[in-house]
Amino acid sequence: MRTIPVIQEILSANDELAQENRERLNRAGVLAVNLMSAPGAGKTSLILRTAQALRGQLRLGVVEGDVASQVDADRVAAAGLPVVQINTGGGCHLDANMLRAALGRLPLEQMDLLIVENVGNLICPASFRLGEHLRVVLTSLAEGDDKPQKYPDLFLQADAIVVNKLDLEAYLDFDRQRFRKLVQAMNPHAALFELSCRNGEGVEAWTTWLYQQRQALLARLNP
Amino acid sequence: MRTIPVIQEILSANDELAQENRERLNRAGVLAVNLMSAPGAGKTSLILRTAQALRGQLRLGVVEGDVASQVDADRVAAAGLPVVQINTGGGCHLDANMLRAALGRLPLEQMDLLIVENVGNLICPASFRLGEHLRVVLTSLAEGDDKPQKYPDLFLQADAIVVNKLDLEAYLDFDRQRFRKLVQAMNPHAALFELSCRNGEGVEAWTTWLYQQRQALLARLNP
Repeated sequence: MRTIPVIQEILSANDELAQENRERLNRAGVLAVNLMSAPGAGKTSLILRTAQALRGQLRLGVVEGDVASQVDADRVAAAGLPVVQINTGGGCHLDANMLRAALGRLPLEQMDLLIVENVGNLICPASFRLGEHLRVVLTSLAEGDDKPQKYPDLFLQADAIVVNKLDLEAYLDFDRQRFRKLVQAMNPHAALFELSCRNGEGVEAWTTWLYQQRQALLARLNP
Repeated sequence: MRTIPVIQEILSANDELAQENRERLNRAGVLAVNLMSAPGAGKTSLILRTAQALRGQLRLGVVEGDVASQVDADRVAAAGLPVVQINTGGGCHLDANMLRAALGRLPLEQMDLLIVENVGNLICPASFRLGEHLRVVLTSLAEGDDKPQKYPDLFLQADAIVVNKLDLEAYLDFDRQRFRKLVQAMNPHAALFELSCRNGEGVEAWTTWLYQQRQALLARLNP
């Protein structure tokens, strides 16, 4: 039973760093989103679509979390966005200390919105706050409509749930009504967006919500 | 730095239990497969297709690992297969002790093949041997062709790599040639299968391989 206190200490140390990250983001007026999903749900594609839709409205910066590789950071950098790649070297989630290091390398004063793409994992990221203002869970029609039941922790915590790959609806058995009911029963406060990063359908509702969240943050910081 | 020895002890204790599981499976002549994938890749669908294809040839039993719910065990039980559901209660992988408990509830003497569906996670299950004979990684066309680069540990360890959702090929950008080259470069010893659990295409090559692996196990156990 000796491991339990150690884990508590690690989580508590993480929460302190997360609080510091949050204060740093607040000082810069940057809204931070922790974007979490299973591998291949389309986190990077959502970031690129979001940047495109918010061009001229919000200045976006990105942190890319991966076990290995810089495939995603290269895609984001090619779109002209400031990006920092974190490789966890096998680790299954980002933590607040990793984000702290990344924040030091981003031009926060020239940003309005930070999207942190967490490691592709529907389980472990639930336990580690980074200092984000919003927790967003991305899933896709290809993963099936039962994911909230099977991976409840992330869905229960989410401020928003985004369902990607609407363009594949005709070829899959995903029951959108069933999914909505599951989410409504588990987490009625989460905003729900259904969209396609491939064809852009539904993206505007999501980016409008993000824009409003940034406005609300500014109002809280400068009452 | 005090956590490192603790982790080593946990892993070593796990390996001892894994060894005991392996011996128990060997005594019963049961080939055990540890099936790992991201959430929603189609592990349960692959199990159901495999059972269908091997009917009359191999008697299959199943262990379903999930964070929560028994959605998958219900599907498998409805197909008439012996199945035990393990709920990890938030845990991100199965371990050998969990499998030990499950083995005690399965009719091993009436089985030839055990498929253990691990928790949907492309990262953490890589570190925990269960006592399996074969490690199989399942991915799908919907997840994109870069997964071996981003989640190398599981792909490097795999005895077989199965790519599901071939039926969606026309609607996705998955480059099968690129994926094959990545896998070949990383793990040239892994068997590679491309199939569709939806329409059955390619399933026979996979089940023929499984059947041969069971024959090879029997030959090793009874030389």
